Amino acid sequence: MLEKLKEEVFQANLELPRQGLIKYTWGNVSAIDRESNLFVIKPSGVDYQVMRAQDMVVCDLDGNVVEGELNPSSDMPTHAVLYKNFLTIGGIVHTHSTWATIWAQAGLDVPAMGTTHADTFYGAVPCTRFLKQEEIDRGYEEETGKLIVATFEERGLKPLEVPGVLLHGHAPFTWGKDADSAVMNAVVLEEVAKMNLFTRQLNSFAEELPQAILDKHYLRKHGENAYYGQK
Amino acid sequence: MLEKLKEEVFQANLELPRQGLIKYTWGNVSAIDRESNLFVIKPSGVDYQVMRAQDMVVCDLDGNVVEGELNPSSDMPTHAVLYKNFLTIGGIVHTHSTWATIWAQAGLDVPAMGTTHADTFYGAVPCTRFLKQEEIDRGYEEETGKLIVATFEERGLKPLEVPGVLLHGHAPFTWGKDADSAVMNAVVLEEVAKMNLFTRQLNSFAEELPQAILDKHYLRKHGENAYYGQK
Amino acid sequence: MLEKLKEEVFQANLELPRQGLIKYTWGNVSAIDRESNLFVIKPSGVDYQVMRAQDMVVCDLDGNVVEGELNPSSDMPTHAVLYKNFLTIGGIVHTHSTWATIWAQAGLDVPAMGTTHADTFYGAVPCTRFLKQEEIDRGYEEETGKLIVATFEERGLKPLEVPGVLLHGHAPFTWGKDADSAVMNAVVLEEVAKMNLFTRQLNSFAEELPQAILDKHYLRKHGENAYYGQK
Amino acid sequence: MLEKLKEEVFQANLELPRQGLIKYTWGNVSAIDRESNLFVIKPSGVDYQVMRAQDMVVCDLDGNVVEGELNPSSDMPTHAVLYKNFLTIGGIVHTHSTWATIWAQAGLDVPAMGTTHADTFYGAVPCTRFLKQEEIDRGYEEETGKLIVATFEERGLKPLEVPGVLLHGHAPFTWGKDADSAVMNAVVLEEVAKMNLFTRQLNSFAEELPQAILDKHYLRKHGENAYYGQK
Repeated sequence: MLEKLKEEVFQANLELPRQGLIKYTWGNVSAIDRESNLFVIKPSGVDYQVMRAQDMVVCDLDGNVVEGELNPSSDMPTHAVLYKNFLTIGGIVHTHSTWATIWAQAGLDVPAMGTTHADTFYGAVPCTRFLKQEEIDRGYEEETGKLIVATFEERGLKPLEVPGVLLHGHAPFTWGKDADSAVMNAVVLEEVAKMNLFTRQLNSFAEELPQAILDKHYLRKHGENAYYGQK
Repeated sequence: MLEKLKEEVFQANLELPRQGLIKYTWGNVSAIDRESNLFVIKPSGVDYQVMRAQDMVVCDLDGNVVEGELNPSSDMPTHAVLYKNFLTIGGIVHTHSTWATIWAQAGLDVPAMGTTHADTFYGAVPCTRFLKQEEIDRGYEEETGKLIVATFEERGLKPLEVPGVLLHGHAPFTWGKDADSAVMNAVVLEEVAKMNLFTRQLNSFAEELPQAILDKHYLRKHGENAYYGQK
Repeated sequence: MLEKLKEEVFQANLELPRQGLIKYTWGNVSAIDRESNLFVIKPSGVDYQVMRAQDMVVCDLDGNVVEGELNPSSDMPTHAVLYKNFLTIGGIVHTHSTWATIWAQAGLDVPAMGTTHADTFYGAVPCTRFLKQEEIDRGYEEETGKLIVATFEERGLKPLEVPGVLLHGHAPFTWGKDADSAVMNAVVLEEVAKMNLFTRQLNSFAEELPQAILDKHYLRKHGENAYYGQK
Repeated sequence: MLEKLKEEVFQANLELPRQGLIKYTWGNVSAIDRESNLFVIKPSGVDYQVMRAQDMVVCDLDGNVVEGELNPSSDMPTHAVLYKNFLTIGGIVHTHSTWATIWAQAGLDVPAMGTTHADTFYGAVPCTRFLKQEEIDRGYEEETGKLIVATFEERGLKPLEVPGVLLHGHAPFTWGKDADSAVMNAVVLEEVAKMNLFTRQLNSFAEELPQAILDKHYLRKHGENAYYGQK
């Protein structure tokens, strides 16, 4: 069942430690098959040295396990909510990568301060509020997904234009058209989180990137007339 | 004698440089056999390239060498005191890992500022006071152990709920149910020490993690109804 | 066509990730043949794992592709302007390396604070102003090159004495007599950007390097009577 | 001539990039044979990939080349002055390692803030003043050595008790009983330079290590009754 997608998700999970985004098993990647509305996700707490593609778990959009002998990542219900509400996305990544997590702990949006940011994120990466006691009691992981969706709605953000978010006190989620691009967006978020923190320290009056340059860099890669890369 | 435990302790010591926690021989791991009340510890100052499992030294809870031709780690008496007083622990790690040592030198507890912390430590990791001249004269390494035990008693902390401590002006000790989990706790402490320092720098008003989220993350992994990982 | 130069440019591009200057394909190196006034540059957005020497693209000084089936780096017109105006240079590198980019985002020149800087850069590395809307509309990449040239003219700097620049809100460009030295200058700029940021944090009164030491270090390597290295 | 010492010096030089202390050829290690009063040092600016043990250059204490076809490191006269004046040392290392160089650029002594420091350095690592124009004119490298010697005399420091120094605006020199221990001392200095910078940032009121703990840690490794390591 979904063997090709399992292989993609498996490989994308292995990419997390290679990119320095996680230690041990602290992270998870999933990807969805929009035909069947089923998604594939890493099992919970399995050592990356012994994990195999066939250990990936298949789930539906209500957060039920459809196939797989292992428990899915405990964050699986968050993924389900995101796939259900963000219809343009195909892959999701969750890590506790150092610098993005620092911004999440600080409870601050990551502002667009340079073209490294603008090449991937069309504006600031938002930070949510803390989850509340009643949300935690109702279902922590599912409510985490709902809070992300609500944050994007309130701010009028399109998920593929700003493919990531920080959970206050927790860590980042990123997404993309597939598992691989979700991982790449996690790498970019981590890098700009580091650069922007030290930019602020070096010059507390540093300005955000002017809108004209933000537009140029985002649109030359992602706009209708994009001319970056090969055809 | 205790060959299996020697192998575990040997492997756990090799994990320290792999995880970037130590340079040269600046660290030590031990593990205890609660049946015989004997523990196995790394020899002092032996190059990791030539060290073998059979070089591990066996000691009793009064800090006597029971078996082994090499001197045990000079911190051995600290380990003995911890095993004697913290009856739930099975392994101990001492490193001078960069970021945890920075907090130790600053003389500050590492507060719980995010879920990365809460997944492992149920609250702040305490920092002791400096050792005094008379304690150093009486026996530096043994008194180090006693100071850790006294710190946990004064604060009403359970060793397995907060599996680590900082010695003011010195460095961290961590522990766990066995040598491997003590190493993993050292990795987590190092990571949260780094993240929390920069969280404070990024936002000096950053709040500690709300109790409800601290409870949720700690208990979903370590509580009675834990559901993280596989059964 | 220019096969030897293609190989040099190809190898210099591979050096960027090895030196930790780039992630993914975020960077580009070129080199010029001053006989034919043609330069060779990396193709745009091609994975470094599959890229080959023959994939390098040949361009002229007006920014036309002369040979090659792939699109050149989108920054190619910047390279063309630099080669056209800086007649002493033979290679150019563009990266978004972390610490140099932090200074670019902060909009600050990197001052000469130590001999590591003076061994390569004969004074501060300048940071340009932001590009303006009308420049972006006229041709972003070409205008980037013109802004660099104008900045060097205004400040009376010689390109080989100060072989690098920061674009405000963007990232560094470095250059040199050939592709390899342009890469080495990118490595030095990244390192001094890191060191100078923390020097300022450690001691906000830290002085710039005295002129006498700046002269000594720059000239013992690059002056008429240089005596560093082998003959 | 001095083949064994050449091999030791060669291997110690290779250790510098392995320990992350240098990039390219920015560093040098030497060691002395006190019988003949000749020392062996790395040649200047030779790529570490092609350098061989027999390329090491033999010099005397007046800074003359006694054997070798390549130019010695341009810092050779500094080494000569140190060997001539610090009669207890057997090896010298010079690097521009990041964090030690940051303190050198800041013009500040590295204070003893923890036991990592105290295990190797018996007190603060001093930072010299800047060299003056007339000293540079007289002979930059030789005067660098004289300034180090004068700094140790003024402060009443013993070279083997405080086996390192920072040159203001430049970088560290470390030394030891042989080439290997000089490299190890360079590693320790780099690590404590990093830790102490961030300790100050985390807690600007952080105290230096109490004298009793400094004594204990230094002397248990280096004192008459040292008990660290194996006999």
